Order: sequence, then structure tokens, then C-alpha cells
Amino acid sequence: MTAALLDRLGPEVVLTGQAAEGFVRDERGLFDGVPAAVVLPRCTEEVALAVRTCAENRIPVVPQGGGTGLVGGAVPVGRGEQVLLNLRRMNRIRAVYAEDFALVAEAGCVLAEVRAAAERADRLFPLSLASEGSCQLGGNLATNAGGLNVVRYGNTRDLVLGLEVVLADGTVWNGLQRLRKDNTGYDVKQLFVGSEGTLGVITAASLRLFPLPRRTSTALLGLVDIKSLVPLLELARRCFDDRVSSLELLPAAGLDLLVRHVPGSRYPMGQRHPWYLLVEASSSTVRGDLDAVMDAFLTTALDSGHAADAVLAVDRADADRLWALRENLSEAQKRAGGTVKHDVSVPLSEVGEFVIAGTRLVHERLPGAQVIALGHVGDGNVHFNVLPSPGQSARDTHLWHRVNEFVHELVARFGGSISAEHGIGLLKREAHAEHADPVRLRLQAAVKQALDPLQIMNPGKVLSQDVTGGKTR
Amino acid sequence: MTAALLDRLGPEVVLTGQAAEGFVRDERGLFDGVPAAVVLPRCTEEVALAVRTCAENRIPVVPQGGGTGLVGGAVPVGRGEQVLLNLRRMNRIRAVYAEDFALVAEAGCVLAEVRAAAERADRLFPLSLASEGSCQLGGNLATNAGGLNVVRYGNTRDLVLGLEVVLADGTVWNGLQRLRKDNTGYDVKQLFVGSEGTLGVITAASLRLFPLPRRTSTALLGLVDIKSLVPLLELARRCFDDRVSSLELLPAAGLDLLVRHVPGSRYPMGQRHPWYLLVEASSSTVRGDLDAVMDAFLTTALDSGHAADAVLAVDRADADRLWALRENLSEAQKRAGGTVKHDVSVPLSEVGEFVIAGTRLVHERLPGAQVIALGHVGDGNVHFNVLPSPGQSARDTHLWHRVNEFVHELVARFGGSISAEHGIGLLKREAHAEHADPVRLRLQAAVKQALDPLQIMNPGKVLSQDVTGGKTR
Repeated sequence: MTAALLDRLGPEVVLTGQAAEGFVRDERGLFDGVPAAVVLPRCTEEVALAVRTCAENRIPVVPQGGGTGLVGGAVPVGRGEQVLLNLRRMNRIRAVYAEDFALVAEAGCVLAEVRAAAERADRLFPLSLASEGSCQLGGNLATNAGGLNVVRYGNTRDLVLGLEVVLADGTVWNGLQRLRKDNTGYDVKQLFVGSEGTLGVITAASLRLFPLPRRTSTALLGLVDIKSLVPLLELARRCFDDRVSSLELLPAAGLDLLVRHVPGSRYPMGQRHPWYLLVEASSSTVRGDLDAVMDAFLTTALDSGHAADAVLAVDRADADRLWALRENLSEAQKRAGGTVKHDVSVPLSEVGEFVIAGTRLVHERLPGAQVIALGHVGDGNVHFNVLPSPGQSARDTHLWHRVNEFVHELVARFGGSISAEHGIGLLKREAHAEHADPVRLRLQAAVKQALDPLQIMNPGKVLSQDVTGGKTR
Repeated sequence: MTAALLDRLGPEVVLTGQAAEGFVRDERGLFDGVPAAVVLPRCTEEVALAVRTCAENRIPVVPQGGGTGLVGGAVPVGRGEQVLLNLRRMNRIRAVYAEDFALVAEAGCVLAEVRAAAERADRLFPLSLASEGSCQLGGNLATNAGGLNVVRYGNTRDLVLGLEVVLADGTVWNGLQRLRKDNTGYDVKQLFVGSEGTLGVITAASLRLFPLPRRTSTALLGLVDIKSLVPLLELARRCFDDRVSSLELLPAAGLDLLVRHVPGSRYPMGQRHPWYLLVEASSSTVRGDLDAVMDAFLTTALDSGHAADAVLAVDRADADRLWALRENLSEAQKRAGGTVKHDVSVPLSEVGEFVIAGTRLVHERLPGAQVIALGHVGDGNVHFNVLPSPGQSARDTHLWHRVNEFVHELVARFGGSISAEHGIGLLKREAHAEHADPVRLRLQAAVKQALDPLQIMNPGKVLSQDVTGGKTR
């Protein structure tokens, strides 16, 4: 089935057999599909030729970025039935427009390189996540990645001014404009952002930049009660004039794992508090009032009783130490044997209630299990993870499904989302079909049908083919 | 053709004959369609029943808000062929969620009332435009309205957390969530924002709120050269840490009209400068450094030579006087006999060059005509208006088309948009078909076909029916 691809693109671009091995990368090791071939295009035209060839031959195409996704959105399904389209060779920063606060980069650029290119022009590209050293822009766009700075700068969707996309029939759409306002009809680029490669292949993007922060101020607050979150979130937004760039929740249960499993870790305050809130604000001016504002914020937080204790970072190294507490929580969970993970969101005001209700449920249904709830609380986004009791394993798919099910039901009761920032991919496809509003699901299927009528773009991801009307897998 | 509607919804809701007169409102007086009936639903269910009835009977539906649109998007086409669906009875603020920084309001709410409801909860709904006392939320959403605060808070699209929509077959989609993050498949609500009623009827929205500003600082700068804009825009963003809420360009030619035609107006500075930049920043804290930052900004602007003079508002009344210069520019143009209008955007760095090139073109092709270029330069959005020479009239459609044509061609050369914030409607439908990237146009047509296969939703707006495959009008 890959002869036509090889014929048109050559062995430099189309790898088969042994050469194609090792390209499938699934961060969580849950999926083990094998591609029919790996296509490594060097330019948009080669992507177009590959997709056109696949369309003509009805070969399913799986676009692939850095492979750091957590829901199996970029792994092939089946064995030898789908082609992996890896964008890593398309890794040019095409242009930096400092005065326009914009930058055009190709899909295969590693996120950290995009950030670095912006920084060299005295600008910030704010998207920042744990995997930024290896994830690629195309994947960030295709999954509408969130990360650490959403509270101030928005999700990836909000950072896109224009896209270049190869459509499902191989047509190239050059929509790489860098306008702040354009009301000429439906904003179709929004469909591709977050579509996980199921509507077309994003090959490049025009991105929104911001003034580069010149100073940051970082503090960690110890909370006695998770209900203090809501007033603290509001206080932070108001005090800092929306210059808070991160608001991260850390649970004592997570720090316990950290101290136990990650050498060199220690509790950040003399006393152990049930919850911690990491607050970082940034300013593009050197002068300005950032330190004074942080002082005022911490004083008010402590005086009001919402915070029991606080640590202010005195310099960047100190801030990095506070951030390490947050960043090493993943590793700590891994070393503790792994957790059953949920990437959910609820309305801001419900985060505390949701965590309390979820924890109660876990304790009822899984005696001995522990909740590690952390994440981007400034966006209502909680990574509600469950550490099974010593007798159980987080790799037990039966357990995984059981826990997912009651947590997702709880999320639905809170009017939340079962995928706040990771997407749907393969992992949550059934949960999505079950929990999504049926009208919204129908709209999604209509869009899929309109933009990819042959169903060759990453079939089976996001929407099951029962929903889209394709063959059932 | 309206019997079925009357039958199902009754004469309370469906007006025909004389009762239906006076509902067509076209701000610019360019269109004179007559509706077959006017439907005034009181709730979402009545909207759904009306649309379902229209779908069954193939009656075209034109959703209508406050009627302040500038491109004829909400006027019926033909005489007695289309039904006007006026949302004004659906004007409830359904809920204010202060802690979630969110609010749910119905489509018929007047924008100023939405802002007031937010303010009562100590929150800001930032959308602000000249017509806010009469335009309605549904229209703001359907046109992705821009306005005065986009540089800080984004377009209407960026302010939407969720939508309730009646689809083209009468199905109600309740997507009124208030989540900051939701990556469960394609973000279909984005399609309805800016669709000008051609894909469905927005009946309510969940909106994003912000901390209420407690202080503002307003200044007017006199510029010798429009090329100073780019460094000043950058300086403002950087100095104010992105707390600049408005950056508005005023031309001397506009102030000349103002002084001549609007009683009580006078030049804001001793000397007349070719260009003026209105800068407003706001802060949600009472303390903070806003005044100091404004001082530093003005000093740097003057020292660098980019500003020749500056006036700082000492209080709100003073700020209002500066704003009146900007706000009365529309009235001044009207009293001067009207201008041929363009609502265009270009990349931020190109605003100056675009205005220079456009002015040169106008002087070449229309001797005696004058350019009045004003608007939201912080977003690259210029209302590039042309005051014809005394012998010509801005109401001459031949002249209008001729000027539009060469200005839009220039916009295309600058990689700009021919409709930055007003939309397409009827007025720019042909220009859109001509200037839009054909692939983008094809994607828009595919979306229209997928979501409104019977082509009953506001047919002929945005996309001509040649493009969508409907009957040609």
C-alpha cells in the first residue's frame, strides 16, 4: 500500500520496513500500533504530495509531532494499516516580526526553540509545558496545548494568528496572516487547532508574541483548607492586574511522594500544609511595582487567614527550587508506581468542592488509595490523579477504567470537562462519546465529514468512526 | 408562507403586515429589504420552534439584534421572502458567577446592560463600542465585534466561554459551560462566533469576565509623523505590562472636521499635529503604579522624539473630553457630508506605511478628496475613510465601489483584511469573494453546507449562494 508514496516521494522521504521502526512513540506506553510507513517530508509541498497520494489510495494518515502527547493521538492504529507523517524535518522558524509581535514557525519546531527565537527578538512566546524541550509546535497546535501560563496568556488556540494547513485532499491552505483582527467570514483556522490531526495537517503557524518579561516574582503559599483557593485566586488576579502568569496547586500528598522518592527534595516550609499554591507574576518593565504588589498580595493572603504561611523566592535560583516542587511531581508519581490520571476542568469556584467530593469517592470506592490533585488551578484545571493502594497497580487497565468512570461522572456533575488540556486521542474517545453533549458531538461529526469526507485523516482519533460514519474500527 | 409560523407561535410572537413594519434597521441606509414576517421569540424554545418551522417550510431566517451592524448582515433580502427573527425579548442576564469570572446572558441583552451586570458583581465585561447603548449581545457575538478594548482583552471571540445556539434544523445546542479549558474535540462554538447568523441562531452566551478596573490613566499624544506609531505602540505595551486597554489613532484631518462641524469641539493642544494617539491604561488595584508608569511612558515618548507633545488627563472628566475627540469623529464625518468607509486591518508594523500609501492613492485617483484614517491602531485596525471632494457625494454608489476597490487592493498587497471588525454581511460579500483566499473560501462553504444544508440561515450573507451552492440571488 505504500508503493505509490515511495514512488512519488522517494526513499529519502518514505521509510518502510526496518527503517520505519522506532518512530511510534507513546508517552504512556499504552498503545502499540505499527505504521505501514513513515513519511518524513521536508517542506509543505511534500506534505501535500504525501496527503494527496494517501487520499487517492485511501491510506489513513497519522500526523506526528514530538510524540509527547498523553492520549495516543499520534500513534497509528492497527498493524501496517496507517502511514505516520512525521513533521520533524519541517523545523524552520520562517520569520520573526518583532514589531508585529508575531512569529512564523513550522510544525516540526521544538517548542523550546520557538520560545528561544521569540526571546532573541525581545519577545515572549508564552506557551510553556513540561515537555517543551521535545514537544513540537504542530502537536501543540493540534492538541490546543495548555500548560503553565494559560491563566495570563490563554491556551494555544489564543496564541494563533494564522495557520498553514494541508487539507485532507492534499490542498495547501496558506492562512499565515499575522493580523489581530480579521472578520472575513468563519474563522476556520479554529477548527484545526485542537483537532488532533483529524481534519488536516498543520504545517506552519503564525503565532502571537508578547513583551518579554524582565522580572518575575514567585511565591509559595501554604493553605490549611482547599476552600481558600477561590478567594486566593481572585485576590491574585486583582492584586497583580492580571499579570499573574502561573497559579499552580500542589498537594501535601504529592510532596510526601516527592520527599520519599526524589532525592534532594524537601518540604518547603517548616510546617507541612495540606495544600500549597505556587504563584508567579511577571512584568515587562524593569522598574514597576511587581515586588511591592507581591508583598501586598502575601500580606493580604496571610492576614485574611486564607494562607497559613508563605515563602517568597529571593532570586531566580530560589524560584527554580519552588518550581522544582511542582515539576518533579510527575516523576515522584512515576517512582511511586504510577497513578491513574485525569486531566479535568471545572468552573474556577468549584475546584475545591470537586477535589473534596472526588477524594471522598476515591476513599469510598478504593480503600487505601490516595488522591494526588495538582495542576493549573488558575484555569480550573486539575490533574486529579489516584495512587492505588499497595495491592493494586496503576497499569491495571480494569482499575484505570473503573476509576476514570466514576471521576468522569463526577466531572459531569460539576459541569466540567474530561479533557482540559490533553485532548481525546484514542485514550478518551469512548469517554468523550459517552460524556459529550450529543448535539455538540453531532456538530463535530458534521465538521469531520465536511473537511475529511474520505476519512483518511487520523481516523479513529477524537471521534469513533461510528460517530463519523466511517468504517468501524 | 408565514401561516405555519403564525399557527405554531401565535400573533403574540409572529408579526405580519403593518405590525411587522419598522423592524428593518440598517444603520447606513443602504438596504431596503422587506420581511415576510417578524418573529419575536420570548425564550430559546420559541426560537427553536420558529427555526424548525422555517426549516420545514424552507423559509429563510434572518436573525436580528440591535440593528447597529454596518454591513447589512441583519436586514432581509428581497421583499416578503425572508423572516426576521428579532431576539430583543430574550434579554435576561441568566446568571452572574463572580467567583468564576463568568456571566451568562441572553442574545437580546443590550451590551451596556451586560457590562452593568458585570460591574455590579465587581467585574468587567470588556467589550465596548460606540453603539453599546443599543447593540445587542447576540449581534456582538454573531459579528465577533471588536471595539475599543481589543488591544488588552481581545475580540468578542476571545471573551466567549460557551454558547447556546439554535441550529439550522431547530435543534437546541446548550453549550453554556464556563470552563477556561476544554479540549474535548473541535471547538465548534468558534464557528458561530463571527458567522453573522448564517449557521444558526445564538440565543445565549457564557462570557469571560475580568477584575474591574479601579483606576484608569488617559493621555493624548501629538505625533509629527505617522511612522512614530510603531515604536509608540511597542513602548506602550512594554511600559504598561500589557495593561493598555486602548490605543486609538486620530488624524488632524478628522479633528479639523470636528472643530468645524461639532459645536464645542476644539483642538486638544496648542499646536495642531498631523496625528494623535489616545492611550488609556487601567488597573484593578487602587494602589499600584499606574500614574508613575504613565509618567514614564510619556517622558520616554517625548524624549525619543516619537511624540511631539502630550496631554495627560487629570481626572475622569478630563479623560472624557479626550475621548469625546475620538467618539465624535463619526458624527463629524456625517455632518461633513459622509465618507466612503473602510474597516481594514494590516500587520501592526505596517499601519503607517499603509496609511501613507493609501493617502497617496486617494490623492492620485480622487483629486480634492481627503483621507480620514482613524481607529484601533493597537490592533492594526484602521477605519480608512475617504471624504470626497466637494463636487462628489459619499452616497454615490459608483464612487463608493470605485474607492473600495482600490483600497481593498492595497489592503491585499499589505497582507491585510478587508473587514477587521464589521463583518461581511451583504455589503462586502462580493469583495470577500474576490479577495479571500480561494481555499479559505472553500472551507467556509464546506462549513456552511455542513451546518445549514437547507440554506435557510441568513442566506446570501457572508457567502454568496454561488459559493455555497444554493440558488443564486
